[in-house]
Amino acid sequence: MNHYAGPIARLIEEFSKLPGVGRKSAQRLAFHVLNMKEADVESLSAAIIEAKRGTKYCSECANITDIDPCVICRNEQREKTIICVVEDPRDVAAMERVREFKGVYHVLHGAISPMEGIGPEDIKIRELLIRIQNGHVEELIMATNPTIEGEATAMYISKLVKPMGIRVTRIAHGIPVGGDLEYADEVTLSKALEGRREL
Amino acid sequence: MNHYAGPIARLIEEFSKLPGVGRKSAQRLAFHVLNMKEADVESLSAAIIEAKRGTKYCSECANITDIDPCVICRNEQREKTIICVVEDPRDVAAMERVREFKGVYHVLHGAISPMEGIGPEDIKIRELLIRIQNGHVEELIMATNPTIEGEATAMYISKLVKPMGIRVTRIAHGIPVGGDLEYADEVTLSKALEGRREL
Repeated sequence: MNHYAGPIARLIEEFSKLPGVGRKSAQRLAFHVLNMKEADVESLSAAIIEAKRGTKYCSECANITDIDPCVICRNEQREKTIICVVEDPRDVAAMERVREFKGVYHVLHGAISPMEGIGPEDIKIRELLIRIQNGHVEELIMATNPTIEGEATAMYISKLVKPMGIRVTRIAHGIPVGGDLEYADEVTLSKALEGRREL
Repeated sequence: MNHYAGPIARLIEEFSKLPGVGRKSAQRLAFHVLNMKEADVESLSAAIIEAKRGTKYCSECANITDIDPCVICRNEQREKTIICVVEDPRDVAAMERVREFKGVYHVLHGAISPMEGIGPEDIKIRELLIRIQNGHVEELIMATNPTIEGEATAMYISKLVKPMGIRVTRIAHGIPVGGDLEYADEVTLSKALEGRREL
Protein backbone atom coordinates (compact mmCIF):
# COMPACT_ATOMS: atom_id res chain seq x y z
CA MET A 1 0.00 0.00 0.00
CA ASN A 2 1.43 3.30 -1.07
CA HIS A 3 0.22 6.72 0.06
CA TYR A 4 2.19 8.84 -2.37
CA ALA A 5 0.92 10.67 -5.44
CA GLY A 6 1.18 8.59 -8.65
CA PRO A 7 4.40 10.04 -10.11
CA ILE A 8 6.22 9.76 -6.76
CA ALA A 9 4.99 6.21 -6.19
CA ARG A 10 6.24 5.27 -9.66
CA LEU A 11 9.65 6.83 -9.04
CA ILE A 12 10.00 5.06 -5.67
CA GLU A 13 9.06 1.83 -7.46
CA GLU A 14 11.71 2.42 -10.14
CA PHE A 15 14.43 3.31 -7.66
CA SER A 16 13.72 0.30 -5.48
CA LYS A 17 14.44 -1.99 -8.45
CA LEU A 18 18.07 -0.82 -8.42
CA PRO A 19 20.65 -3.04 -6.68
CA GLY A 20 21.26 -2.18 -3.03
CA VAL A 21 18.35 0.27 -2.93
CA GLY A 22 15.69 -0.74 -0.40
CA ARG A 23 12.26 0.79 0.09
CA LYS A 24 13.48 3.47 2.50
CA SER A 25 16.42 4.50 0.32
CA ALA A 26 14.16 4.62 -2.72
CA GLN A 27 11.84 7.00 -0.87
CA ARG A 28 14.74 9.17 0.20
CA LEU A 29 16.09 9.28 -3.36
CA ALA A 30 12.66 10.09 -4.79
CA PHE A 31 12.11 13.00 -2.41
CA HIS A 32 15.61 14.19 -3.09
CA VAL A 33 14.74 14.30 -6.80
CA LEU A 34 11.62 16.36 -6.03
CA ASN A 35 13.79 18.87 -4.19
CA MET A 36 16.43 19.07 -6.93
CA LYS A 37 16.47 21.91 -9.47
CA GLU A 38 14.63 20.98 -12.65
CA ALA A 39 17.81 21.34 -14.72
CA ASP A 40 19.62 18.86 -12.46
CA VAL A 41 16.74 16.42 -12.70
CA GLU A 42 16.83 16.68 -16.49
CA SER A 43 20.55 16.08 -16.44
CA LEU A 44 20.18 12.94 -14.28
CA SER A 45 17.34 11.60 -16.40
CA ALA A 46 19.28 12.24 -19.62
CA ALA A 47 22.50 10.73 -18.26
CA ILE A 48 20.68 7.47 -17.55
CA ILE A 49 19.21 7.12 -21.01
CA GLU A 50 22.39 8.30 -22.75
CA ALA A 51 24.60 5.88 -20.84
CA LYS A 52 22.39 3.08 -22.09
CA ARG A 53 21.94 4.31 -25.67
CA GLY A 54 25.40 5.81 -26.16
CA THR A 55 27.51 2.82 -25.17
CA LYS A 56 28.30 -0.55 -26.68
CA TYR A 57 30.86 -3.32 -26.38
CA CYS A 58 34.20 -2.61 -28.04
CA SER A 59 34.44 -4.98 -31.02
CA GLU A 60 38.01 -5.83 -30.02
CA CYS A 61 38.15 -6.11 -26.24
CA ALA A 62 34.41 -6.13 -25.29
CA ASN A 63 34.93 -3.31 -22.82
CA ILE A 64 32.02 -0.89 -22.61
CA THR A 65 32.73 2.15 -24.77
CA ASP A 66 31.12 5.05 -26.57
CA ILE A 67 33.47 4.74 -29.56
CA ASP A 68 34.47 1.55 -31.35
CA PRO A 69 37.26 0.46 -31.04
CA CYS A 70 37.58 1.81 -27.51
CA VAL A 71 40.20 4.39 -26.51
CA ILE A 72 42.53 1.68 -25.26
CA CYS A 73 42.29 -0.56 -28.33
CA ARG A 74 42.74 2.40 -30.72
CA ASN A 75 45.77 3.69 -28.81
CA GLU A 76 48.88 3.01 -30.93
CA GLN A 77 51.09 3.11 -27.84
CA ARG A 78 49.46 0.07 -26.26
CA GLU A 79 51.06 -3.32 -26.87
CA LYS A 80 48.55 -5.51 -28.64
CA THR A 81 50.65 -8.60 -27.94
CA ILE A 82 49.80 -8.61 -24.24
CA ILE A 83 46.18 -9.09 -23.28
CA CYS A 84 44.97 -8.76 -19.72
CA VAL A 85 41.79 -10.82 -19.28
CA VAL A 86 39.29 -9.46 -16.74
CA GLU A 87 35.76 -10.30 -15.70
CA ASP A 88 34.21 -6.86 -15.71
CA PRO A 89 34.60 -3.38 -17.25
CA ARG A 90 35.16 -2.05 -13.73
CA ASP A 91 38.26 -4.24 -13.50
CA VAL A 92 39.66 -2.44 -16.56
CA ALA A 93 39.11 0.89 -14.81
CA ALA A 94 40.84 -0.47 -11.68
CA MET A 95 43.84 -1.66 -13.72
CA GLU A 96 44.03 1.63 -15.62
CA ARG A 97 44.20 3.55 -12.37
CA VAL A 98 47.54 1.83 -11.67
CA ARG A 99 48.93 3.40 -14.89
CA GLU A 100 51.47 0.61 -15.29
CA PHE A 101 49.94 -1.85 -17.66
CA LYS A 102 50.74 -0.98 -21.27
CA GLY A 103 48.99 -3.88 -22.98
CA VAL A 104 45.35 -4.23 -23.94
CA TYR A 105 42.36 -5.92 -22.25
CA HIS A 106 39.74 -8.51 -22.86
CA VAL A 107 36.53 -8.26 -20.85
CA LEU A 108 34.79 -11.59 -20.30
CA HIS A 109 31.62 -10.10 -18.77
CA GLY A 110 31.45 -12.72 -16.08
CA ALA A 111 33.14 -15.91 -14.95
CA ILE A 112 32.32 -19.56 -15.42
CA SER A 113 29.94 -20.57 -12.64
CA PRO A 114 28.16 -23.93 -12.85
CA MET A 115 26.23 -22.94 -9.70
CA GLU A 116 24.67 -19.99 -11.49
CA GLY A 117 24.40 -21.85 -14.77
CA ILE A 118 27.06 -19.73 -16.47
CA GLY A 119 29.09 -21.84 -18.87
CA PRO A 120 32.12 -20.95 -21.05
CA GLU A 121 29.78 -20.09 -23.93
CA ASP A 122 27.97 -17.48 -21.81
CA ILE A 123 31.01 -15.26 -21.38
CA LYS A 124 33.28 -13.78 -24.03
CA ILE A 125 35.77 -16.66 -24.29
CA ARG A 126 34.98 -17.43 -27.92
CA GLU A 127 35.71 -13.79 -28.82
CA LEU A 128 39.03 -14.07 -26.99
CA LEU A 129 40.01 -17.18 -28.97
CA ILE A 130 39.08 -15.54 -32.28
CA ARG A 131 41.14 -12.53 -31.27
CA ILE A 132 44.15 -14.72 -30.49
CA GLN A 133 43.80 -16.55 -33.81
CA ASN A 134 43.56 -13.34 -35.81
CA GLY A 135 46.26 -11.34 -34.08
CA HIS A 136 49.78 -11.76 -32.81
CA VAL A 137 49.40 -12.40 -29.06
CA GLU A 138 52.38 -13.31 -26.88
CA GLU A 139 50.98 -13.26 -23.38
CA LEU A 140 47.61 -13.57 -21.69
CA ILE A 141 47.54 -12.19 -18.15
CA MET A 142 44.64 -13.80 -16.33
CA ALA A 143 43.30 -11.12 -13.99
CA THR A 144 39.98 -12.73 -13.15
CA ASN A 145 38.97 -12.48 -9.49
CA PRO A 146 40.57 -14.76 -6.89
CA THR A 147 37.25 -16.56 -6.35
CA ILE A 148 36.33 -20.14 -7.20
CA GLU A 149 34.64 -18.90 -10.40
CA GLY A 150 37.52 -16.60 -11.33
CA GLU A 151 40.11 -19.32 -10.76
CA ALA A 152 38.07 -21.85 -12.73
CA THR A 153 37.74 -19.40 -15.61
CA ALA A 154 41.48 -18.68 -15.58
CA MET A 155 42.26 -22.41 -15.62
CA TYR A 156 39.76 -23.10 -18.39
CA ILE A 157 41.13 -20.39 -20.67
CA SER A 158 44.70 -21.33 -19.83
CA LYS A 159 44.12 -24.94 -20.94
CA LEU A 160 42.64 -23.78 -24.24
CA VAL A 161 45.31 -21.20 -25.00
CA LYS A 162 48.57 -22.76 -23.81
CA PRO A 163 48.64 -25.38 -26.60
CA MET A 164 48.60 -22.44 -29.04
CA GLY A 165 52.08 -21.54 -27.75
CA ILE A 166 50.96 -18.45 -25.87
CA ARG A 167 52.36 -17.59 -22.46
CA VAL A 168 49.57 -17.54 -19.87
CA THR A 169 50.19 -15.86 -16.50
CA ARG A 170 48.07 -15.22 -13.43
CA ILE A 171 48.24 -12.04 -11.34
CA ALA A 172 49.73 -12.64 -7.89
CA HIS A 173 47.55 -13.21 -4.86
CA GLY A 174 48.80 -12.54 -1.35
CA ILE A 175 48.64 -10.18 1.58
CA PRO A 176 47.41 -6.76 0.38
CA VAL A 177 49.94 -3.96 0.82
CA GLY A 178 49.25 -2.32 4.17
CA GLY A 179 47.37 -5.45 5.24
CA ASP A 180 48.02 -7.32 8.45
CA LEU A 181 49.11 -10.96 8.55
CA GLU A 182 47.02 -11.49 11.65
CA TYR A 183 43.82 -10.67 9.83
CA ALA A 184 44.57 -12.47 6.58
CA ASP A 185 42.42 -15.51 5.87
CA GLU A 186 44.03 -18.92 5.43
CA VAL A 187 43.59 -19.09 1.68
CA THR A 188 45.21 -15.70 1.11
CA LEU A 189 48.03 -16.63 3.47
CA SER A 190 48.57 -19.91 1.69
CA LYS A 191 48.64 -18.07 -1.67
CA ALA A 192 51.14 -15.61 -0.20
CA LEU A 193 53.42 -18.45 0.89
CA GLU A 194 53.03 -20.29 -2.39
CA GLY A 195 53.96 -17.16 -4.34
CA ARG A 196 57.01 -16.27 -2.19
CA ARG A 197 60.10 -14.89 -3.95
CA GLU A 198 63.84 -14.65 -3.33
CA LEU A 199 64.91 -11.45 -1.59
CA MET B 1 40.79 10.54 -12.78
CA ASN B 2 38.15 8.44 -14.45
CA HIS B 3 38.78 5.59 -16.85
CA TYR B 4 35.26 5.09 -18.08
CA ALA B 5 33.78 6.08 -21.42
CA GLY B 6 32.14 9.55 -21.38
CA PRO B 7 28.48 8.57 -21.00
CA ILE B 8 29.30 6.12 -18.19
CA ALA B 9 31.52 8.63 -16.40
CA ARG B 10 28.70 11.18 -16.60
CA LEU B 11 26.15 8.73 -15.21
CA ILE B 12 28.47 7.75 -12.34
CA GLU B 13 28.93 11.47 -11.66
CA GLU B 14 25.16 12.05 -11.62
CA PHE B 15 24.47 9.06 -9.38
CA SER B 16 27.15 10.04 -6.91
CA LYS B 17 25.39 13.38 -6.36
CA LEU B 18 22.43 11.53 -4.84
CA PRO B 19 22.22 11.30 -1.04
CA GLY B 20 23.79 8.18 0.45
CA VAL B 21 25.32 7.15 -2.87
CA GLY B 22 29.12 6.98 -2.73
CA ARG B 23 31.54 6.50 -5.59
CA LYS B 24 31.41 2.71 -5.46
CA SER B 25 27.61 2.56 -5.29
CA ALA B 26 27.37 5.05 -8.15
CA GLN B 27 29.57 2.77 -10.27
CA ARG B 28 27.51 -0.27 -9.36
CA LEU B 29 24.28 1.57 -10.21
CA ALA B 30 25.69 2.85 -13.51
CA PHE B 31 26.78 -0.62 -14.64
CA HIS B 32 23.45 -1.98 -13.54
CA VAL B 33 21.77 0.55 -15.84
CA LEU B 34 23.99 -0.57 -18.74
CA ASN B 35 22.84 -4.14 -18.16
CA MET B 36 19.15 -3.26 -17.91
CA LYS B 37 16.75 -3.68 -20.84
CA GLU B 38 16.40 -0.48 -22.84
CA ALA B 39 12.66 -0.28 -22.04
CA ASP B 40 13.41 -0.45 -18.31
CA VAL B 41 16.06 2.25 -18.63
CA GLU B 42 13.57 4.47 -20.47
CA SER B 43 11.02 3.85 -17.76
CA LEU B 44 13.49 4.82 -14.99
CA SER B 45 14.62 7.92 -16.86
CA ALA B 46 11.03 9.00 -17.53
CA ALA B 47 9.90 8.34 -13.94
CA ILE B 48 12.58 10.72 -12.68
CA ILE B 49 11.62 13.59 -14.93
CA GLU B 50 7.87 12.97 -14.51
CA ALA B 51 8.09 12.91 -10.73
CA LYS B 52 9.71 16.32 -10.86
CA ARG B 53 7.46 17.85 -13.53
CA GLY B 54 4.21 16.16 -12.57
CA THR B 55 4.09 17.12 -8.89
CA LYS B 56 3.52 20.31 -6.93
CA TYR B 57 2.61 21.38 -3.42
CA CYS B 58 -1.09 21.05 -2.53
CA SER B 59 -2.42 24.60 -2.19
CA GLU B 60 -4.19 23.60 1.04
CA CYS B 61 -1.86 21.31 2.99
CA ALA B 62 1.45 21.74 1.10
CA ASN B 63 1.82 17.97 0.71
CA ILE B 64 3.40 16.91 -2.57
CA THR B 65 0.69 15.94 -5.02
CA ASP B 66 -0.06 15.45 -8.70
CA ILE B 67 -3.56 16.98 -8.39
CA ASP B 68 -4.49 20.13 -6.51
CA PRO B 69 -6.03 19.97 -3.94
CA CYS B 70 -4.46 16.63 -3.03
CA VAL B 71 -6.50 13.45 -2.60
CA ILE B 72 -6.66 13.93 1.16
CA CYS B 73 -7.77 17.59 1.07
CA ARG B 74 -10.40 16.90 -1.61
CA ASN B 75 -11.81 13.92 0.30
CA GLU B 76 -15.21 14.93 1.76
CA GLN B 77 -14.92 12.24 4.44
CA ARG B 78 -11.88 13.86 6.07
CA GLU B 79 -12.50 16.21 8.97
CA LYS B 80 -11.15 19.61 8.05
CA THR B 81 -11.38 20.77 11.66
CA ILE B 82 -8.45 18.59 12.78
CA ILE B 83 -5.07 19.34 11.24
CA CYS B 84 -2.06 17.11 11.85
CA VAL B 85 1.12 19.18 11.39
CA VAL B 86 4.14 17.24 10.08
CA GLU B 87 7.60 18.14 8.87
CA ASP B 88 7.75 16.11 5.69
CA PRO B 89 5.54 14.51 3.01
CA ARG B 90 6.96 11.15 4.09
CA ASP B 91 5.42 11.71 7.52
CA VAL B 92 2.00 12.04 5.87
CA ALA B 93 2.55 8.70 4.17
CA ALA B 94 3.60 7.16 7.51
CA MET B 95 0.48 8.49 9.24
CA GLU B 96 -1.76 7.34 6.40
CA ARG B 97 -0.40 3.81 6.70
CA VAL B 98 -1.94 3.68 10.20
CA ARG B 99 -5.40 4.26 8.65
CA GLU B 100 -6.73 5.79 11.83
CA PHE B 101 -6.39 9.52 11.43
CA LYS B 102 -9.45 11.01 9.76
CA GLY B 103 -8.41 14.67 9.77
CA VAL B 104 -6.22 16.51 7.29
CA TYR B 105 -2.54 17.46 7.26
CA HIS B 106 -0.25 20.42 7.04
CA VAL B 107 3.26 19.81 5.76
CA LEU B 108 5.83 22.30 7.06
CA HIS B 109 8.67 21.12 4.79
CA GLY B 110 11.21 21.31 7.57
CA ALA B 111 11.56 22.38 11.18
CA ILE B 112 12.92 25.50 12.81
CA SER B 113 16.67 25.08 13.21
CA PRO B 114 18.79 28.08 14.15
CA MET B 115 21.88 25.87 13.71
CA GLU B 116 21.08 25.36 10.04
CA GLY B 117 19.76 28.88 9.62
CA ILE B 118 16.15 27.74 9.17
CA GLY B 119 13.78 30.24 10.73
CA PRO B 120 9.96 30.19 11.08
CA GLU B 121 9.63 32.08 7.80
CA ASP B 122 11.54 29.33 5.92
CA ILE B 123 8.96 26.65 6.58
CA LYS B 124 5.24 26.69 5.87
CA ILE B 125 4.06 28.21 9.15
CA ARG B 126 2.58 31.33 7.55
CA GLU B 127 0.49 29.12 5.27
CA LEU B 128 -0.74 27.21 8.33
CA LEU B 129 -1.79 30.43 10.08
CA ILE B 130 -3.63 31.66 6.97
CA ARG B 131 -5.37 28.31 6.77
CA ILE B 132 -6.47 28.54 10.40
CA GLN B 133 -7.75 32.09 9.89
CA ASN B 134 -9.71 31.17 6.79
CA GLY B 135 -11.21 27.88 7.95
CA HIS B 136 -12.85 26.41 11.00
CA VAL B 137 -10.08 24.54 12.82
CA GLU B 138 -10.65 22.95 16.23
CA GLU B 139 -7.46 21.02 16.86
CA LEU B 140 -3.86 21.07 15.72
CA ILE B 141 -2.00 17.82 16.36
CA MET B 142 1.71 18.60 16.39
CA ALA B 143 3.38 15.54 14.86
CA THR B 144 6.79 17.06 14.20
CA ASN B 145 9.74 14.78 15.02
CA PRO B 146 10.83 14.28 18.62
CA THR B 147 14.10 16.12 17.96
CA ILE B 148 15.26 19.47 19.31
CA GLU B 149 14.16 21.12 16.06
CA GLY B 150 10.82 19.30 15.95
CA GLU B 151 10.05 20.17 19.58
CA ALA B 152 11.02 23.81 19.07
CA THR B 153 8.80 24.00 16.01
CA ALA B 154 5.88 22.44 17.88
CA MET B 155 6.33 24.90 20.76
CA TYR B 156 6.64 27.86 18.40
CA ILE B 157 3.45 27.04 16.52
CA SER B 158 1.64 26.19 19.74
CA LYS B 159 2.38 29.63 21.19
CA LEU B 160 1.08 31.34 18.06
CA VAL B 161 -2.06 29.28 17.74
CA LYS B 162 -3.28 28.70 21.30
CA PRO B 163 -4.33 32.35 21.79
CA MET B 164 -6.63 31.86 18.80
CA GLY B 165 -8.65 29.45 20.96
CA ILE B 166 -7.52 26.34 19.11
CA ARG B 167 -6.66 23.12 20.92
CA VAL B 168 -3.03 22.17 20.30
CA THR B 169 -1.88 18.64 21.11
CA ARG B 170 1.40 16.77 20.72
CA ILE B 171 1.68 13.11 19.71
CA ALA B 172 2.92 10.86 22.54
CA HIS B 173 6.56 9.89 22.85
CA GLY B 174 7.64 6.79 24.73
CA ILE B 175 8.91 3.26 24.38
CA PRO B 176 8.07 1.95 20.90
CA VAL B 177 5.70 -1.01 20.86
CA GLY B 178 7.83 -4.16 20.80
CA GLY B 179 10.76 -2.13 22.11
CA ASP B 180 12.85 -3.09 25.08
CA LEU B 181 13.18 -0.88 28.18
CA GLU B 182 16.77 -1.95 28.53
CA TYR B 183 17.72 -0.44 25.19
CA ALA B 184 15.67 2.75 25.43
CA ASP B 185 17.66 5.96 25.75
CA GLU B 186 17.20 8.18 28.79
CA VAL B 187 15.22 10.89 27.01
CA THR B 188 12.71 8.42 25.58
CA LEU B 189 12.40 6.74 28.96
CA SER B 190 11.85 10.07 30.67
CA LYS B 191 9.18 10.95 28.07
CA ALA B 192 7.57 7.56 28.67
CA LEU B 193 7.41 8.20 32.41
CA GLU B 194 6.17 11.74 31.95
CA GLY B 195 3.38 10.56 29.65
CA ARG B 196 2.25 7.68 31.88
CA ARG B 197 -1.48 6.98 32.16
CA GLU B 198 -3.87 5.33 34.62
CA LEU B 199 -4.50 1.66 33.97
